[in-house]
Amino acid sequence: MLDLCTLGTGGTMPMPDRALSALYVRVNGRALLIDCGEGTQVGVQRLGWGMQCIDGILISHFHADHCSGLPGMLLALTKALRTEPLHIYGPVGLTQVVSGLRVIAPQLTFPVMLHELSGQTEFELLGLQITAFPLDHGIPCYGWRLHLPRNAAFDPDKARALRVPLPLWKTLQSGEAVQVEGHAIRPEDVMGPPRRGITVLYATDTRPVEVIPELGFRCDLMILEGMYGAEEKYPLAIRNHHMLYREAAALARDAEAARLLLTHFSTSIEAPEAYLPQAQSVFPATDVAVDGMTLTLQYP
Amino acid sequence: MLDLCTLGTGGTMPMPDRALSALYVRVNGRALLIDCGEGTQVGVQRLGWGMQCIDGILISHFHADHCSGLPGMLLALTKALRTEPLHIYGPVGLTQVVSGLRVIAPQLTFPVMLHELSGQTEFELLGLQITAFPLDHGIPCYGWRLHLPRNAAFDPDKARALRVPLPLWKTLQSGEAVQVEGHAIRPEDVMGPPRRGITVLYATDTRPVEVIPELGFRCDLMILEGMYGAEEKYPLAIRNHHMLYREAAALARDAEAARLLLTHFSTSIEAPEAYLPQAQSVFPATDVAVDGMTLTLQYP
Repeated sequence: MLDLCTLGTGGTMPMPDRALSALYVRVNGRALLIDCGEGTQVGVQRLGWGMQCIDGILISHFHADHCSGLPGMLLALTKALRTEPLHIYGPVGLTQVVSGLRVIAPQLTFPVMLHELSGQTEFELLGLQITAFPLDHGIPCYGWRLHLPRNAAFDPDKARALRVPLPLWKTLQSGEAVQVEGHAIRPEDVMGPPRRGITVLYATDTRPVEVIPELGFRCDLMILEGMYGAEEKYPLAIRNHHMLYREAAALARDAEAARLLLTHFSTSIEAPEAYLPQAQSVFPATDVAVDGMTLTLQYP
Repeated sequence: MLDLCTLGTGGTMPMPDRALSALYVRVNGRALLIDCGEGTQVGVQRLGWGMQCIDGILISHFHADHCSGLPGMLLALTKALRTEPLHIYGPVGLTQVVSGLRVIAPQLTFPVMLHELSGQTEFELLGLQITAFPLDHGIPCYGWRLHLPRNAAFDPDKARALRVPLPLWKTLQSGEAVQVEGHAIRPEDVMGPPRRGITVLYATDTRPVEVIPELGFRCDLMILEGMYGAEEKYPLAIRNHHMLYREAAALARDAEAARLLLTHFSTSIEAPEAYLPQAQSVFPATDVAVDGMTLTLQYP
């Protein structure tokens, strides 16, 4: 199970009811943030899913709307008495940006581990297999594929066939081998077929790029930018390296995603739902995010 | 006339309904901010008194709750197409702090003029005579006295006595000299006694210091921190270089201020008004600020 909250859904500048980019992702009681715009720490407080449990922050790029909340978050984690390392991932330049911003957050109660990305990169955090992939935003900018794997299920028929006594099933289920009639039975011997996990793809601040439907193929949820809705913004979208709703929808359609959530709305969009038909005509399972919206993705 | 808005009344950390320190001051259609914590740009938007008209930002000190909103504000001013210089005042170290924070706000449409203060300093902004004065906060920290002077009034009796013809009164009132029967009459020749202006003293993040009642003597409004209310916080107030409500009230009483407004509340204070009696028993004309509270000070 994976819980998400769109803490902030604003692009470029915050608005009274639309904070800057930040997504809270919770897995097994631990959490990470994707982006950390101004106001993120208040969004985390309001959500109530926990501050201290945030183990990582993924920064897509260094435009202020994606990282201006960082010094405040670091201090909020210090106030929450975090002592474990905090991992921050972002494009090359991360060290310089974090060190600049930390001019007002010099003393923390935990070590900050910085990971500068270049090219497509895989790493693990909270048990998630994360793929960072470059986008097309004019400056280095990353999207993120989060994959939560699922263990294969214990298969009672296989256990019976191997004559594993009932009291030993629990040991195998917990991942340990057992001895049966002088033979070792390993957990994988009594497992059913592999099971699909949960996959979320997140990408804002980009023109459409092929890697999005490729890495997001048949994902459970695609979260893409809804920077512009109106067709007449198309030249602006190209100039500013952003997308129209319909372009995001086409990526979700090409990926055969289960659903699409749009976020990161331009301040020129007063009501994000007004342009939803433009997206839904291309990919019906599209919705628009609002600040504080929560979603729970269950294993299929 | 001088208008004020307490954009953010939170100390240390923001809360869902209590943004970090920021005061908006408007005089003659221009504005300045005192402090600029995270969330300030949204507070300015919500207030609706104008973004582009902000000519200066006074930063009391470099704890994040007083300056974490700076990069966002600089970008908001850029989005508002400001071209005139923006003046930022703060303690020594300002250049380093602003340059650190500008790692995410490198390109602006206006020049930033930095003024590093050391010791008590006077300067002028928006026609206000401003005195920056050092506080006692463990690190360099400034309070601010804002004085809006008022011109003396035109005195018709003096004009008549000097035989100034009625059509020339307007010229004198506009500040120009006139010729009457071969003699020059200067504006000051037809002015009444000097008139009292408006004085506001603002100081947060400090132990009580004598300069506060001294510079705030008989001021129209004193705005001081209400970091702690409960008496048992006294040792903490001393340790953290802060004040209790009653200590702030004693400063306003000693200054013979017309009124006192408390702001910059600790996150440990859930309802700032709960401790108001502690302050009012020392200085009855005390009130507590809330985010977005506005005040208009008229000439007496």
